[in-house]
Amino acid sequence: MMIMDRLYKDAIKKGPICVGLDTTLKFLPQYLLLKDWSDGEKITAFNKKVIDATEDLAAAYKVQIACYESLGLDGLKAYSETVKYARNKNIVVIGDVKRGDISSTGDQYAKGHFTGDFEVDIMTVNAYMGEDAVSPYYSYIKDNNKGIFILQRTSNPSAVDLQNLKVQDDFIYEIMGDKIEKWGSAFRGECGFSSIGAVVGLTRPDEFAAIQKRCPHTFFLVPGYGAQGGKGEDIANILKRTRCAVVNSSRGLITGHQKAGCEDEGFAEHIRNATLAMKEDILQWL
Amino acid sequence: MMIMDRLYKDAIKKGPICVGLDTTLKFLPQYLLLKDWSDGEKITAFNKKVIDATEDLAAAYKVQIACYESLGLDGLKAYSETVKYARNKNIVVIGDVKRGDISSTGDQYAKGHFTGDFEVDIMTVNAYMGEDAVSPYYSYIKDNNKGIFILQRTSNPSAVDLQNLKVQDDFIYEIMGDKIEKWGSAFRGECGFSSIGAVVGLTRPDEFAAIQKRCPHTFFLVPGYGAQGGKGEDIANILKRTRCAVVNSSRGLITGHQKAGCEDEGFAEHIRNATLAMKEDILQWL
Repeated sequence: MMIMDRLYKDAIKKGPICVGLDTTLKFLPQYLLLKDWSDGEKITAFNKKVIDATEDLAAAYKVQIACYESLGLDGLKAYSETVKYARNKNIVVIGDVKRGDISSTGDQYAKGHFTGDFEVDIMTVNAYMGEDAVSPYYSYIKDNNKGIFILQRTSNPSAVDLQNLKVQDDFIYEIMGDKIEKWGSAFRGECGFSSIGAVVGLTRPDEFAAIQKRCPHTFFLVPGYGAQGGKGEDIANILKRTRCAVVNSSRGLITGHQKAGCEDEGFAEHIRNATLAMKEDILQWL
Repeated sequence: MMIMDRLYKDAIKKGPICVGLDTTLKFLPQYLLLKDWSDGEKITAFNKKVIDATEDLAAAYKVQIACYESLGLDGLKAYSETVKYARNKNIVVIGDVKRGDISSTGDQYAKGHFTGDFEVDIMTVNAYMGEDAVSPYYSYIKDNNKGIFILQRTSNPSAVDLQNLKVQDDFIYEIMGDKIEKWGSAFRGECGFSSIGAVVGLTRPDEFAAIQKRCPHTFFLVPGYGAQGGKGEDIANILKRTRCAVVNSSRGLITGHQKAGCEDEGFAEHIRNATLAMKEDILQWL
């Protein structure tokens, strides 16, 4: 079973929920902040509790490496321990690293994120440099059952600066989608989706629907739910046609305890509740 | 003095040479490989010797983080020690990290690479996500005298997949260049160049000349010399008009000892010679 088959099936079984571990110190409950540990150790402890509390609800965890890189080596140790902990639960782990570099340098990123300390199942990739920034992952997709999500149409306001420019009749994000379909055509699994997926935000449901029709073999990682404004009904309308996506929420979930005013060891229960609410918000429309 | 002023002046004084430390184990001389050290420690020792041997020739060092990430935490410790060592010599250090993420996530990358363990003077940035992936660096440019180089027209073959698509009369890389000029307009130093520079490869000298004319306040980090086919005469033709660039070579320099068949402690002298040869190859045309 290829990695996108696994993610596809888990998303049907558990719900299309990706829990985003964009963990920074400001999200930690007081009792953890007061521990005599390094910042990275506090964040690791937080993440492990969140994973324990949500493992039956999460089709995947997406770990945003920037939040860990910002703390230097101590932070990256927390990243390493977090992705290992989640993978040991047999849940798909997406390294949200948005790397993009070519040939021999791309090989190094592939090795760095598909083996060793930072090994994840799927990593996000930026393909501004073209296929040379994607092909270094092919051998890992083929031989090690790994996958990538390429940035296609992101959920941020200035995504339009480049992605919505028009080349003759097509938007850049459509051209990128065509390339993702083509690059992925050699890596399709039994579910019909390729191990080369795409990141498409939920902030413009009309665009997303058109993208999905145009790229029928592409599985999507969908940011933009919750804190960024995307609604459960919007993603459900896509998933009614085909179960082609997992939806990520980060801040919307991992601040669940703060919204409930909980700063003690019971914090993760509130994050579980936020995750459950997200799942129900999507599934009620399906 | 802003960071691009410093790089501009150092490039005139020392020559427009950026020494690329894309160090992997295969470049290490035998005597280092035989040491009873971790891989990261061996790479750190190599880099320090290279820096010692080239510090009077290098206007900047570019350290390719992918080569260090591939070795996990041990590799990133080597990255940290390398950038610290070079910065302590008072030479501009460019973290070739090609990060690109938005708002709060971009803030984390900015913190990660402009403070702490991985602090560099300038980092490379991928702006596929638009200005949201660039604006997180503005405060560090303004308050901490940092700079960025945004990927504009890269030197790899498949760069054309996206960068050479045409939007009406303009190539994507020209549109990106216009944006870089605009984003950088608030951060121009006494030399006339902005602290927001661009990465433009040397593989198409005609394109580069046109880009430079169109973006007169943009300072360029130029890969593609040597191993990738760029010639000294090509870059000199640009620099004759204005000293708007530093030229990077990585493999072409740090394999100098291997080309000379040297595997002992004298290896760095050959890398120095390769760096001198590159400098002369460019300066002879100026």
